[in-house]
Amino acid sequence: MTKLLLKGGEVLLPNGQVKQADVAIENNVIAYVDDIPQTWQPEKTIHCSDKLIAPGLVNTHTHAAMTLFRSYADDMALMDWLQKKIWPAEAKLVAQDVYWGTMLAIAEMLKSGTTTFADMYFFMDEVAKAVDQSGIRAVLSRGMSGVTPTAQQALTESEEFFRTFHGFADGRITVMLGPHAPYTCPPDYLKKVISLAEKLGAQIHIHLSETEGEVLDCLKAYGKSPIALMEELGLLGHGVLAAHCVHVSAEDIAIMQRHKVRVAHNPGSNMKLASGVAPVPAMLAAGLPVGLGTDGASSNNNLDMLEELRLAALLHKVHELNPLLVPAKTAVDMATAMGAQAVGLEDAIGSIQKGFKADLVIWNMHNLRWCPRHDRISLLTYSASAQDVHTVIVNGHIVVDNQKLVTIDEEKLLFEVQQRGMRLVRDR
Amino acid sequence: MTKLLLKGGEVLLPNGQVKQADVAIENNVIAYVDDIPQTWQPEKTIHCSDKLIAPGLVNTHTHAAMTLFRSYADDMALMDWLQKKIWPAEAKLVAQDVYWGTMLAIAEMLKSGTTTFADMYFFMDEVAKAVDQSGIRAVLSRGMSGVTPTAQQALTESEEFFRTFHGFADGRITVMLGPHAPYTCPPDYLKKVISLAEKLGAQIHIHLSETEGEVLDCLKAYGKSPIALMEELGLLGHGVLAAHCVHVSAEDIAIMQRHKVRVAHNPGSNMKLASGVAPVPAMLAAGLPVGLGTDGASSNNNLDMLEELRLAALLHKVHELNPLLVPAKTAVDMATAMGAQAVGLEDAIGSIQKGFKADLVIWNMHNLRWCPRHDRISLLTYSASAQDVHTVIVNGHIVVDNQKLVTIDEEKLLFEVQQRGMRLVRDR
Repeated sequence: MTKLLLKGGEVLLPNGQVKQADVAIENNVIAYVDDIPQTWQPEKTIHCSDKLIAPGLVNTHTHAAMTLFRSYADDMALMDWLQKKIWPAEAKLVAQDVYWGTMLAIAEMLKSGTTTFADMYFFMDEVAKAVDQSGIRAVLSRGMSGVTPTAQQALTESEEFFRTFHGFADGRITVMLGPHAPYTCPPDYLKKVISLAEKLGAQIHIHLSETEGEVLDCLKAYGKSPIALMEELGLLGHGVLAAHCVHVSAEDIAIMQRHKVRVAHNPGSNMKLASGVAPVPAMLAAGLPVGLGTDGASSNNNLDMLEELRLAALLHKVHELNPLLVPAKTAVDMATAMGAQAVGLEDAIGSIQKGFKADLVIWNMHNLRWCPRHDRISLLTYSASAQDVHTVIVNGHIVVDNQKLVTIDEEKLLFEVQQRGMRLVRDR
Repeated sequence: MTKLLLKGGEVLLPNGQVKQADVAIENNVIAYVDDIPQTWQPEKTIHCSDKLIAPGLVNTHTHAAMTLFRSYADDMALMDWLQKKIWPAEAKLVAQDVYWGTMLAIAEMLKSGTTTFADMYFFMDEVAKAVDQSGIRAVLSRGMSGVTPTAQQALTESEEFFRTFHGFADGRITVMLGPHAPYTCPPDYLKKVISLAEKLGAQIHIHLSETEGEVLDCLKAYGKSPIALMEELGLLGHGVLAAHCVHVSAEDIAIMQRHKVRVAHNPGSNMKLASGVAPVPAMLAAGLPVGLGTDGASSNNNLDMLEELRLAALLHKVHELNPLLVPAKTAVDMATAMGAQAVGLEDAIGSIQKGFKADLVIWNMHNLRWCPRHDRISLLTYSASAQDVHTVIVNGHIVVDNQKLVTIDEEKLLFEVQQRGMRLVRDR
């Protein structure tokens, strides 16, 4: 039994208000917010004056190990980028690369206030190992493609991975199935994925309608949009986390609403790859939970969720020429509570309330960017830096302490990833 | 005579290449890059291994003292924001507020790698004082409006300000005239500004074509776009720094090209205020120097030029659905060498070369976001944090040393601005 007290800070409450309150943590849950009984005695106290205690950020879509390719290939057309650069480099990946690349992503996420991430990649046992060791929370999917020689193997591995790791690491790991996208997973293959999801009771993480080309190809091949095709196949009934949803129509949004599809919006990646601007205000108006994601570091190029939060608040205003869209409070909600909904953990994380998991970030407000302090939510959204993260707690454990990683050897990590990153892009 | 050696770093050269090189600084200029004579002996050496030495960032458009209103009024329609919030609060400003608000902006800029800023505000003697004391470089304009009772006073003050401060502070301050915008400065008033510019040999800093409404009003009133109207009045011949230029047509761009107009592009402010997306790729293709600016902190909400650099690289890709637009190297150029052109200092700052002023930023690359190091320019553009700024040198003087301000008392500053910011928004 560990008892941790966060004393004298300002707390971002579920209603979006900020108020001075103490927070009591017992084991891995928030035991009290403000109404702490006098008999409750902490074993450790963190003094939080001039600090903002906020829910941990939820990164709803990434490919963590792709940090290895950060800055390797930028400012390129999509197919050039994939065919000439990313795929040849990915072909050289070994399991240990994925472990170290993922650990770099986790280190970056923890230090910048992300406490949960949803990942889709391969060598997922290595990803689970990095999650276990680092103390972060994760929703993991083995990416599956139906058009490669490993199509069947991906299904088998996904089942094994689910059975081994769903609920692993004190419950910090949950597992979803990860069919990559409609254009890499034909209907017959998706039917196998759906059968497996039914058998396991697993949810699904998939890329949907990221580019206009993808939607046009789908219309041509099946006479339906990717979203409509997924509905027809029966995929949407299984708790779907849909990444991107850039090119979705009003009809698509109505379908998503019917099936309670959850969205991972990746503004930085969509901007950099020139995919387009997702109709986020319309999706929010339809009541869809829209979380935020960084996507992989080869298309972003970092894992900074505060950047995504800020981009979400800025991009839709200028795109629809309306300064009232995605206000600060909504952007913060997308990065926290709606993110929790998106990854299927809405009853456990994403807000600071009694009984929820203790996944918290303590932001240091005692600096230039938080001055003067007219409105904390606005400061967090439009002015703060990810490097204002002072302390991070996941599942009741301190994983970042005064800006330092507790569970990860940063020097060793930098050395390993630098060596491995260079090896992967070297011509043979 | 001071001699400073930057030893063992990687240097971002004017051609956009990065190479290992030592940099020698004598007094306020760069004396040598790489080809340092053996007889040259430094008085002080900064060891720069694992660091990137880059030109200081140039913030081509801001209203520095508006840090006082940071987070006071966000997510509002433009006229509501101005009429209900900003103007009533600005009416309470006293000279000392402008001093402290400007000092906060300068502190933030220096710590995030900005070595020169172009400012337009009032109580400009206070701004000059803050620039002098802090060691930053600045291009200052007293904002002038022709439709207020202080119209004539603004002209008189601008002349006095130019005569007193142009070339002040070891040449770190240059002064421009600052007619606010065509919609606040009618043609007759602008003619007086132009006469004054001719008399003084002063350049001009002005807001042009920021919103669609402004352009439509101008077309209605004068039958011309703001750019065309400025040409007709003869304003563009005086070395013009034009802020925003969001709603400019191909004809406008041709006019700007003819008169060598320089642009201050403010992507963050344009996004947040939903002004629109400036045709930056077209302006660059026309050979216009396009620098970057933060605009004031009440519409941004910070002074982080690396954010603007990143937004410039991201926004135009998604807006024109072309991932090749504004590549990393161009974005860095906009934030440095083109910024120097924009503020009229292209022969003095903005690149690391012999004889240029020693305005440099030493970036610490030994951290997660710079790993692995496939491409430094790409890492700076798409991944780095402003808080990776390690050391900043302006005019040969170290003003940030290992992330600490040398010339400014940060604690006193935070206290003063917090008090003053709160006073300004308190209802009487």
